[in-house]
Amino acid sequence: MPTRLIESLATTAALAEVFSDESVLQAMLDFEAALARAEARVGIVPKQAADAITSAAQASQFDIPEISRGTYRAGTAAIPLVKALRERVKKRNSDAPAWVHWGATSQDVVDTALVLLLKRSLPILVRDLQRLDQALAGLSERHKDSVMLGRTLMQPAPPVTFGLKAAGWLGAQRRDGERLKSAFAEAMVVQFGGASGTLASLGERGLEVARALAEELALRYPEAPWHSHRDRLASVVCCCGVLTGSLGKMARDISLLMQNEAAEVAEPGGEGRGGSSTMPHKRNPIACALTLAAAERTPGLIASFLSAMVQEHERGVGSWQSEWPLIASVIQATGSAASSMAETAEGLSVDVARMRQNIQNTRGLIFAEKAMMLLAPKLGRDVAHELLERAARESITQQKHLSKVLAEMPEVASRVEPSVLEQLAIPEQYLGCAEAFRQALLRGNTLKKQEP
Amino acid sequence: MPTRLIESLATTAALAEVFSDESVLQAMLDFEAALARAEARVGIVPKQAADAITSAAQASQFDIPEISRGTYRAGTAAIPLVKALRERVKKRNSDAPAWVHWGATSQDVVDTALVLLLKRSLPILVRDLQRLDQALAGLSERHKDSVMLGRTLMQPAPPVTFGLKAAGWLGAQRRDGERLKSAFAEAMVVQFGGASGTLASLGERGLEVARALAEELALRYPEAPWHSHRDRLASVVCCCGVLTGSLGKMARDISLLMQNEAAEVAEPGGEGRGGSSTMPHKRNPIACALTLAAAERTPGLIASFLSAMVQEHERGVGSWQSEWPLIASVIQATGSAASSMAETAEGLSVDVARMRQNIQNTRGLIFAEKAMMLLAPKLGRDVAHELLERAARESITQQKHLSKVLAEMPEVASRVEPSVLEQLAIPEQYLGCAEAFRQALLRGNTLKKQEP
Amino acid sequence: MPTRLIESLATTAALAEVFSDESVLQAMLDFEAALARAEARVGIVPKQAADAITSAAQASQFDIPEISRGTYRAGTAAIPLVKALRERVKKRNSDAPAWVHWGATSQDVVDTALVLLLKRSLPILVRDLQRLDQALAGLSERHKDSVMLGRTLMQPAPPVTFGLKAAGWLGAQRRDGERLKSAFAEAMVVQFGGASGTLASLGERGLEVARALAEELALRYPEAPWHSHRDRLASVVCCCGVLTGSLGKMARDISLLMQNEAAEVAEPGGEGRGGSSTMPHKRNPIACALTLAAAERTPGLIASFLSAMVQEHERGVGSWQSEWPLIASVIQATGSAASSMAETAEGLSVDVARMRQNIQNTRGLIFAEKAMMLLAPKLGRDVAHELLERAARESITQQKHLSKVLAEMPEVASRVEPSVLEQLAIPEQYLGCAEAFRQALLRGNTLKKQEP
Amino acid sequence: MPTRLIESLATTAALAEVFSDESVLQAMLDFEAALARAEARVGIVPKQAADAITSAAQASQFDIPEISRGTYRAGTAAIPLVKALRERVKKRNSDAPAWVHWGATSQDVVDTALVLLLKRSLPILVRDLQRLDQALAGLSERHKDSVMLGRTLMQPAPPVTFGLKAAGWLGAQRRDGERLKSAFAEAMVVQFGGASGTLASLGERGLEVARALAEELALRYPEAPWHSHRDRLASVVCCCGVLTGSLGKMARDISLLMQNEAAEVAEPGGEGRGGSSTMPHKRNPIACALTLAAAERTPGLIASFLSAMVQEHERGVGSWQSEWPLIASVIQATGSAASSMAETAEGLSVDVARMRQNIQNTRGLIFAEKAMMLLAPKLGRDVAHELLERAARESITQQKHLSKVLAEMPEVASRVEPSVLEQLAIPEQYLGCAEAFRQALLRGNTLKKQEP
Repeated sequence: MPTRLIESLATTAALAEVFSDESVLQAMLDFEAALARAEARVGIVPKQAADAITSAAQASQFDIPEISRGTYRAGTAAIPLVKALRERVKKRNSDAPAWVHWGATSQDVVDTALVLLLKRSLPILVRDLQRLDQALAGLSERHKDSVMLGRTLMQPAPPVTFGLKAAGWLGAQRRDGERLKSAFAEAMVVQFGGASGTLASLGERGLEVARALAEELALRYPEAPWHSHRDRLASVVCCCGVLTGSLGKMARDISLLMQNEAAEVAEPGGEGRGGSSTMPHKRNPIACALTLAAAERTPGLIASFLSAMVQEHERGVGSWQSEWPLIASVIQATGSAASSMAETAEGLSVDVARMRQNIQNTRGLIFAEKAMMLLAPKLGRDVAHELLERAARESITQQKHLSKVLAEMPEVASRVEPSVLEQLAIPEQYLGCAEAFRQALLRGNTLKKQEP
Repeated sequence: MPTRLIESLATTAALAEVFSDESVLQAMLDFEAALARAEARVGIVPKQAADAITSAAQASQFDIPEISRGTYRAGTAAIPLVKALRERVKKRNSDAPAWVHWGATSQDVVDTALVLLLKRSLPILVRDLQRLDQALAGLSERHKDSVMLGRTLMQPAPPVTFGLKAAGWLGAQRRDGERLKSAFAEAMVVQFGGASGTLASLGERGLEVARALAEELALRYPEAPWHSHRDRLASVVCCCGVLTGSLGKMARDISLLMQNEAAEVAEPGGEGRGGSSTMPHKRNPIACALTLAAAERTPGLIASFLSAMVQEHERGVGSWQSEWPLIASVIQATGSAASSMAETAEGLSVDVARMRQNIQNTRGLIFAEKAMMLLAPKLGRDVAHELLERAARESITQQKHLSKVLAEMPEVASRVEPSVLEQLAIPEQYLGCAEAFRQALLRGNTLKKQEP
Repeated sequence: MPTRLIESLATTAALAEVFSDESVLQAMLDFEAALARAEARVGIVPKQAADAITSAAQASQFDIPEISRGTYRAGTAAIPLVKALRERVKKRNSDAPAWVHWGATSQDVVDTALVLLLKRSLPILVRDLQRLDQALAGLSERHKDSVMLGRTLMQPAPPVTFGLKAAGWLGAQRRDGERLKSAFAEAMVVQFGGASGTLASLGERGLEVARALAEELALRYPEAPWHSHRDRLASVVCCCGVLTGSLGKMARDISLLMQNEAAEVAEPGGEGRGGSSTMPHKRNPIACALTLAAAERTPGLIASFLSAMVQEHERGVGSWQSEWPLIASVIQATGSAASSMAETAEGLSVDVARMRQNIQNTRGLIFAEKAMMLLAPKLGRDVAHELLERAARESITQQKHLSKVLAEMPEVASRVEPSVLEQLAIPEQYLGCAEAFRQALLRGNTLKKQEP
Repeated sequence: MPTRLIESLATTAALAEVFSDESVLQAMLDFEAALARAEARVGIVPKQAADAITSAAQASQFDIPEISRGTYRAGTAAIPLVKALRERVKKRNSDAPAWVHWGATSQDVVDTALVLLLKRSLPILVRDLQRLDQALAGLSERHKDSVMLGRTLMQPAPPVTFGLKAAGWLGAQRRDGERLKSAFAEAMVVQFGGASGTLASLGERGLEVARALAEELALRYPEAPWHSHRDRLASVVCCCGVLTGSLGKMARDISLLMQNEAAEVAEPGGEGRGGSSTMPHKRNPIACALTLAAAERTPGLIASFLSAMVQEHERGVGSWQSEWPLIASVIQATGSAASSMAETAEGLSVDVARMRQNIQNTRGLIFAEKAMMLLAPKLGRDVAHELLERAARESITQQKHLSKVLAEMPEVASRVEPSVLEQLAIPEQYLGCAEAFRQALLRGNTLKKQEP
């Protein structure tokens, strides 16, 4: 099942597949089959009925458009699904249809199917995060000495290294990935509670069935059904949003660095990537655009999901029903961002010479702070500050290097050696802890932990 | 093209069709064909080429999955679309492919296609709003005398009529509908600007082509291309959100009135509506649930759309690319809410006796304000207030009607005729301007306007 | 009342004043005083009582912290306010307290006070929009011939003029401003409905009082109370969001153009603006930052407001109570953006030479489309496209102007005059309809309307 | 510093205090003082200067309105703060001003101050969550046998116990609280990076100062400065949103149960709580309203925060500047919800008789599922389903108990003992695993973990 055209920039093929009609339907059928088998193990459902149900539970055999229409009418996919499954089961075993969905309610199948889809999504996300991690670690190592402008409020600031910048992206995505994995782990729980969440229709056997069902699906069974407590899903969705935000930051940085006027890095072109329908020369930041699009879309989806947490009593009206498309969109957006940034990091071209050139183009202005730290003790802070503002203005208007302007100022010349001023603007001499921070980020530990 | 399963509660069939792959693709092809014809009229493109392009522009002939994959790689649907169209055109006329997309840029085709889809959506929305309008007007007329509890903070308050309540829903949806139509009208504009929005590649002929193109598509040509000014679309999206909010309010009201404990109204069951997979007795508020689900989802989508208005220079990175699925979801959610509430209003059953019973069940407490207004002038406000609090407590603890409690209080008995106290709790005598407001809402005018 | 520190970047002084404690309290008191006067005119309330209420209704005389604490307990500001007002009135006239708030409910005072605050906000917003309009019109006229790079996906594209860019900003804010004024006009309505929105406690006199009240406050009285129909406010809030989005786009553009590497424009410094606490040389885009901060914050606030439209029956639980801080924040954010962009447009410095230089730095690549349009008819589109890709690559790798590369290609040289190639990269010759669009935007009419 | 009127329903007094002007200013001053002391320990700043700075850093001594105005102009609070602090320090020690803010940048003080405010907020939140936890555990224990209707889509469903419902609320808030505490713990990190995040101006001594600073403030120093990586804060904000969503669900449930028609529970009135300005009898769900208001507002604030994660390079334009009011509002909304629900749970009155009565009012219909499970094996599922639909209809139209209707049906009478039918509608006999789930939720463990 291919990506829909209207969403073609909003998902990857792999995740579009997970949330495709056949996959969604199969997840619901997997629940029904597992339930029948669990109930057969426990002795409630006849083994033959469970077999018939299991063998009928093949999504490819169903009329999906009809189920979709029925879902709209019924307000839940479970009703047309169970109806259709019973019909197919009947062809195999005329006694078995009555055992379909035994003891379960609509929400049990819909929610557990969602968990199964999330379970299939996680390795797809994790794989791309691992690619990204590895690629960024490589970039960071290779460029630990590549000096570049720091930029604050998009204005030039003292230098950093590209290795540190890449390590910053890495640190964020690594923390985000850890939170995400932990949220997913928490959410890998069966929903199974029956009509009101008490499993009443199964009498004494409820818990036994519930545990067998969880085993069949390789999920956990939680303390209790969570039909109207959506915090675990909300937490997954939020962690996706935080990750996508961090990836969006990386994409924004790269798209800024790709501007023709900066030209410090470039996305890999790759097959079909980055061209223009009218401009033969263009190399567009397409992976960045897809990532930023994901970062635009997820926050609103998350807001909707959070506001839908207010679900009435044992099953909400509207709130619960709003979740499916929200969570599917969030997971797919996250995957699209992770995959795009992995591809970008793996193939990023970096122009180290241009990075240095862009520093030089500031004519030493970004070292004004350094000059300030140098002069303040000698002249007093206020005098030094006023002098540097004057020097900065002169440097700009006369297009002259700040070191030179300073060297020509008598107040400075009389107090600072020319050799010191010459070294003022050597980026490597004003990197502070950049390398220590970079290494700490790559180790992924706090400085505190790493030392006794 | 049927609704996707994951979105089966989030759209109607009619709107799912508008945003289906074939429809989206056809809208883009319609742009390309109209452009070729417009350029042929103006004398830029050979007529035969325009004919070949028009005849090749049939969505059903295209490999949609391939275009979808190409879109993800290229970051825009226009690139694979133009490529595929050129291939199909070539089979008809080997000189014509070069004239495909002549003078246009990706955004021209994508944005104008979106406008065409919106144009097809509007009558679908309007039809349901008209059904809703008519049904609510009918309900309001029929129930102009049906008294029911007012409820503030979900607690009993002095009575209203169901006619007034229905008129309130009507007034809101009518104002919302007017705003929506006006926003749509403003947005029915071609996007056509070429690479940078200047139509430079068409030289002197740009405006002429632009106007001919607008005519071909029966859209307006605005002051200038709006590639990175998205306010018209944002306004459409916002108006959808306001309408959906009002419909959500109506759905919340109805779902509250449908509670077994209130039981004042009920959604029509209709085919396949309202049953439960486990509970044979249930009549669920499904149309309300779908409407409330829409009202949960739209605000977040709108937030994303608004935050994506910040589009860089002549075409944004990420922001523009995030729009398609957002706007498609908003329109479909709005349509789902409008259709659901139309169906509900048309078939709503109203239990007038139960409404009155629920008033009586408050044992006159909701007339405490009326008693207050009656007693304050006789006893002084503070004394009256204290006395009424006492009476209310007694009424609650002794399960006795407030009129009776008051009649037994000497301070009251000595000052108020028994006949007045007996009439205290007649709902019809405490409706104030309910009917005047109802009529004004149905007329849809302000009270001010209607009078000289 | 000064801006709170935590919100000091989120409002202007003028709007902080509108939403200050004293102003909010005064607006509520204005409602109560106007109500008493209206009821005195109609003959319900004794004139002396109305006078006492009016003269006591001075916010500066109240213990605001106590009212704030009482509000939290009562869930509405009206209860502690009415209590405090009665106490103050009593000192003037011992019979008058009973007439305070006569016939009104909490929501009447709270909502009408909000409308009064909005009414005071509008001229503040409009003034800044007018400043912005005028400044942008001036910039656009002065720079109608200032060529600069078009930039799509933040990559170089064919040229535009800065005049056109400024006109684009102007067009959007003008459309947004019109929508905003119209939404405000619609919202300037009294809320006055009493306990359940029927004015029952005023008996026959409800409408008469309502109209007199509206007159006292110089607001309209609408068809009916709108206690739980919030579409007019939602529409105001949304229009603020659309405007702020457009202003955010302008701020993003300017902050990008202010990058040291582009250096095409600069925000005016102004008093205290744009410095850095550590870097003496910096000129930061502070007004852009404030505007973008507003554009970040409003969409979420709007989502919350829209989702709170689902208000139960005659007064919502939670939804209504959530509105005040949301709408106050939206208005203030909008004002901060409008004021910041007005200040920016009025003082923007524009470096026309640098704009041209940045075009030249692309070595003709942005004219590849133009070359394409030139060569396609002579070579066939496919051959021309392939040739231009080759030429573009060569231009990049050899750092040679595209015209020169093309001139050296035999396929081109044999078909195109050298003089034509030389003119290829003259920006003025590739502006298409830029000037026509600019003028149309300044006129603010569609091209269609302006012609017969 | 009292709560502002416009936000009086949006915060608690304790949290309003944390985000008050004086508290915010003091947090920034605490950073500056701690920095000076840290640099004195390391030997960079003279001890007397550090002493002078520490003793001058008293918020109560500053002109807050002036700093607020300066903040708006400068785009950051740090600039006017540092200026004002230098002035005050100068009075103590004329050499010391130059050492103020030594090596730090604006973001260091602003972000670390925010962390300090969060640190002060946590115990306030935790205390209310603990109160809530204890109160809910008590309610759950006391009501483990109190049967009540299950309600799905707000329609009657098989019974639950109020003990289970309270345990469900408890389970969610406990999981949410754990996530929240863990997110806060992760965020308790100093921001200290200097101009570009490399601590360049401190040369070799950067890390040493950073660690000493962290010690002074009792915070951790992380791997690296996090100036433009906001994931830790985003995670705090999201966890607040999930918690507030769960509390909103509890508040929605309670406000529904407080409806006059259900009347199963009631909020405690408490001082000034729940009255009406017009209706003496009312007991409004004020704590629920405040909680639901918080649940309405947080999702949008979170969306804004997440979308502002996309921060450019070493300091964002607009995104960073948007954070303060967002995070302050989220924390305060969360606190308001937690405090309101704690108060509610501690004082909730529960009407056990009414709960049972509301079950009986369904005339056995909610046991249709149970009857179905009973009859399906005897009659076949389809026959049984059809028969039960018939019985349910009859029960509704004839207002007759379902057991009785069934007993009169020959198909049933011939197969089921009368005594079995009589027991059909005993709620206690259809509770399934309600008690097991309740206990598991109170233990807070998964069923899996608790058993071998």
